Amino acid sequence: MLLKSKTSITSLFILLIWFPSAAALSVKDQYQQYSEVKTALDELVLANHILYDQGALDGYGHISVRNPSNPQTFFIARSVAPSVVKLDDILEVDMGGKVLNDDKRTAYGERFIHSGILNANPTINSVIHGHAASTLPFGVTGTTLKPIYHMSAFLGEGAPIFEIRDFAKPSPDTDMFVSNPDLGAGLAKVMGNGNFVLMRGHGYAASAENIRKAVFRAIYAVQNASIQAEAMKMGKTQYLTLKEAEISKATIEKTINRPWELWSERVRNQK
Amino acid sequence: MLLKSKTSITSLFILLIWFPSAAALSVKDQYQQYSEVKTALDELVLANHILYDQGALDGYGHISVRNPSNPQTFFIARSVAPSVVKLDDILEVDMGGKVLNDDKRTAYGERFIHSGILNANPTINSVIHGHAASTLPFGVTGTTLKPIYHMSAFLGEGAPIFEIRDFAKPSPDTDMFVSNPDLGAGLAKVMGNGNFVLMRGHGYAASAENIRKAVFRAIYAVQNASIQAEAMKMGKTQYLTLKEAEISKATIEKTINRPWELWSERVRNQK
Amino acid sequence: MLLKSKTSITSLFILLIWFPSAAALSVKDQYQQYSEVKTALDELVLANHILYDQGALDGYGHISVRNPSNPQTFFIARSVAPSVVKLDDILEVDMGGKVLNDDKRTAYGERFIHSGILNANPTINSVIHGHAASTLPFGVTGTTLKPIYHMSAFLGEGAPIFEIRDFAKPSPDTDMFVSNPDLGAGLAKVMGNGNFVLMRGHGYAASAENIRKAVFRAIYAVQNASIQAEAMKMGKTQYLTLKEAEISKATIEKTINRPWELWSERVRNQK
Amino acid sequence: MLLKSKTSITSLFILLIWFPSAAALSVKDQYQQYSEVKTALDELVLANHILYDQGALDGYGHISVRNPSNPQTFFIARSVAPSVVKLDDILEVDMGGKVLNDDKRTAYGERFIHSGILNANPTINSVIHGHAASTLPFGVTGTTLKPIYHMSAFLGEGAPIFEIRDFAKPSPDTDMFVSNPDLGAGLAKVMGNGNFVLMRGHGYAASAENIRKAVFRAIYAVQNASIQAEAMKMGKTQYLTLKEAEISKATIEKTINRPWELWSERVRNQK
Repeated sequence: MLLKSKTSITSLFILLIWFPSAAALSVKDQYQQYSEVKTALDELVLANHILYDQGALDGYGHISVRNPSNPQTFFIARSVAPSVVKLDDILEVDMGGKVLNDDKRTAYGERFIHSGILNANPTINSVIHGHAASTLPFGVTGTTLKPIYHMSAFLGEGAPIFEIRDFAKPSPDTDMFVSNPDLGAGLAKVMGNGNFVLMRGHGYAASAENIRKAVFRAIYAVQNASIQAEAMKMGKTQYLTLKEAEISKATIEKTINRPWELWSERVRNQK
Repeated sequence: MLLKSKTSITSLFILLIWFPSAAALSVKDQYQQYSEVKTALDELVLANHILYDQGALDGYGHISVRNPSNPQTFFIARSVAPSVVKLDDILEVDMGGKVLNDDKRTAYGERFIHSGILNANPTINSVIHGHAASTLPFGVTGTTLKPIYHMSAFLGEGAPIFEIRDFAKPSPDTDMFVSNPDLGAGLAKVMGNGNFVLMRGHGYAASAENIRKAVFRAIYAVQNASIQAEAMKMGKTQYLTLKEAEISKATIEKTINRPWELWSERVRNQK
Repeated sequence: MLLKSKTSITSLFILLIWFPSAAALSVKDQYQQYSEVKTALDELVLANHILYDQGALDGYGHISVRNPSNPQTFFIARSVAPSVVKLDDILEVDMGGKVLNDDKRTAYGERFIHSGILNANPTINSVIHGHAASTLPFGVTGTTLKPIYHMSAFLGEGAPIFEIRDFAKPSPDTDMFVSNPDLGAGLAKVMGNGNFVLMRGHGYAASAENIRKAVFRAIYAVQNASIQAEAMKMGKTQYLTLKEAEISKATIEKTINRPWELWSERVRNQK
Repeated sequence: MLLKSKTSITSLFILLIWFPSAAALSVKDQYQQYSEVKTALDELVLANHILYDQGALDGYGHISVRNPSNPQTFFIARSVAPSVVKLDDILEVDMGGKVLNDDKRTAYGERFIHSGILNANPTINSVIHGHAASTLPFGVTGTTLKPIYHMSAFLGEGAPIFEIRDFAKPSPDTDMFVSNPDLGAGLAKVMGNGNFVLMRGHGYAASAENIRKAVFRAIYAVQNASIQAEAMKMGKTQYLTLKEAEISKATIEKTINRPWELWSERVRNQK
């Protein structure tokens, strides 16, 4: 968020001449020249491995991070499985879902999930999309995913469900992929101000203002889904009240470095 | 599929003199002389390990591949657990389920699942049979396994269930094994043009035009079964529409090398 | 079963002078002097590790094997967790549950499960007792565990449930342990000619004519329990018919060396 | 429990002059000077790793032990994930939840769970708090967790449920954390003479007279929760009678070193 306070005419002028050159820099060059890009990309690679190890992603799924040097682009791996992502696999993509830097490698067909959400909400800087098994039954049965406990308090009054048929054109029958800017914008609209959305017959998307928080939310939303499914079989369930969710979220999300340290250690030990 | 276009009299003549000599070659000789056989067998061994690691097979179960040099035979391991299969364990079997090359080692008693399906459908080149826990409840309760999400779109309008009692002779009571050509043909008939069949009180069979796709389908059918079972407990379930399944299948099955890379890396790291 | 055919007066005479000396031999001495004891004990240690790795036992539970040199005694570990059992931990116990060879180390309090079953049925040579989670709900709800598939065909018409209150004296309230010869005899009686019995509020016992088959049965009964529980939630379940169970059992139990090889390799690789 | 019998005037006098100096000793100094502190802290670190490995804790949760040299303080890790706790992470805390020895590192916000329970019950010397998934559905649906089998006999007539709304002031809406002495005292009151309490929308707390027994109870309560949830779906469940629970608890809790040995070996092998 280097640019956040540069709102004067002067800074806008600087931006105008600086942006094109930044866009001209390869991901590797940005990694070497900007320390905040280096930090973000190292964390992005690690987050890919953590999300697989913790069961929030499997052989598919992806995580993105907004470019800290340029809010109009984001970084995301080329089309490989999350657990094998390396620094060299990272692409830079713009808010229309276009891969930049003349990079010809195959991109995820669903990068529009990321461009859609990042474009719609400037406070969001990281997006995750996956197919974790526990989340699927909610989407296909129209059941609202709600916060069972403080760990997933960010679910608030419950996650909305994205029905791709409501946005697909010309036919409502699709390959279920958010594969163009319009579908990405539709998904972002359904997600609204929340940070989690279920995708019917497909999976979920999670978001946050930084990578660690997005990872935390994806992992605990997946766990919440398993627990809620069991609770619903057992009887009438008391979810967090809206007020409890709001207060809990503030407390618990101050502590996310605690599991992050453990999750990082686990994947490092697997090397 | 070397022989696919050789339909002229000349090629038939070549076949007639070439087949016996090919049949006379041991699996090892074919591996050394035909690069496409080498590729297929290396992948077959790896697929055995992957299917175990991903929970689609356990101490039992098997995968076959049609001989790329001779569509009338296929390769499959001798009777050992999938996770310990080595190149040296591979047998060559004909479409009647007869082990070739004078190989006296014990073959899987259920190789007729493979000969039955490969014989009935010339576009299928790889078959998998296993007992994964999540698939069993469907077969024994007569519940149709349907595509919950795009990953298992190939399930289409739902997998048929093979009831061995309908094909067993003289008595409908059997050891539940597809242990002769007639039962293999019956299973293939129930499977029809689909690529997945549940076997009541036994397990499942999956098929595809190549090893990687068959592996992909087995793994995601097993996961679909778990997810569908949970969804059915939660409420009325929206499966992929037939049209969604058809379109999704085309898209997702172009990407199967992505998880394959990860799955391969996992089993290689376990060595 | 060295002694099986020795029924002449001469052999009886030999037995009379040989037995005491055999009983006088320590487990270690028998291991060194009798090759069939060596084989049995090596397999017993391995079986302990396999049963833990495959989830049929946890930090508790045990497996025994009848002494191949003396049908009136059996071998079982001293009171340690199955996964850490070493050769040196093996005790010899008689059919009354008495530890032999003047061995003062702590024995399992539930060795009477083993003595009870081995004593009641001379064709049984190995017994397993554990608390695997999937088996518990059946015992506490009075639900019959039945064969879902050929792998657990040995369950036949269903496993009986041992209610310790029916056998405990003077009060029906106990510590739930089969901790004396009477309770062991009661358990064996409920088990009858079957090879699996559920113990209400406690766990299960499995048996077979040899270690490998007992291990096979324990592992697949535990899996059958999970699958059956899911099937019962899904709808009316078709179990194996009695005839199917009988025929399947004969076929599948000829193949138990196949998973045994894999299970052994797994625990060896963990060393 | 060095001080247990020191009830004479003399010992009280000794205490008065000894306590301040003990309190003045850093955790490290106490570790080096008092062998019972060394034993307790080594076991505390190991217990943290075991609880994670056995699924009773995840990236969150904690275990405490009363100071064997001073019953008015206890030891607990600073705010890090259980699986990465090292000796150097241990803090000393008093019965008001105040961190001693001028240690400025971040403490767990929920240390009041520990101070509350340890303060209310002088026979309790170790407390565990976690969020294990299987326990959550009970708390949020008001379902009583009861002993399914002898392993969790300590659950007795069933675990009470702590509703934080009943104790929170001024508003019943909180962040769900037991974050002050009053809430800790409330939790201890609900727990009463039992050794397990469910916390609605949060997790559980377990206690015992020593670390190993607390670990044993947490692990088997978590397993009991899974088993009971399955049993309740299957039919009317026979729990241990109160008398059975009482007798079973006495027997089984004499054997807790058996799984402890295995659990220790597992985490040591992961190093």
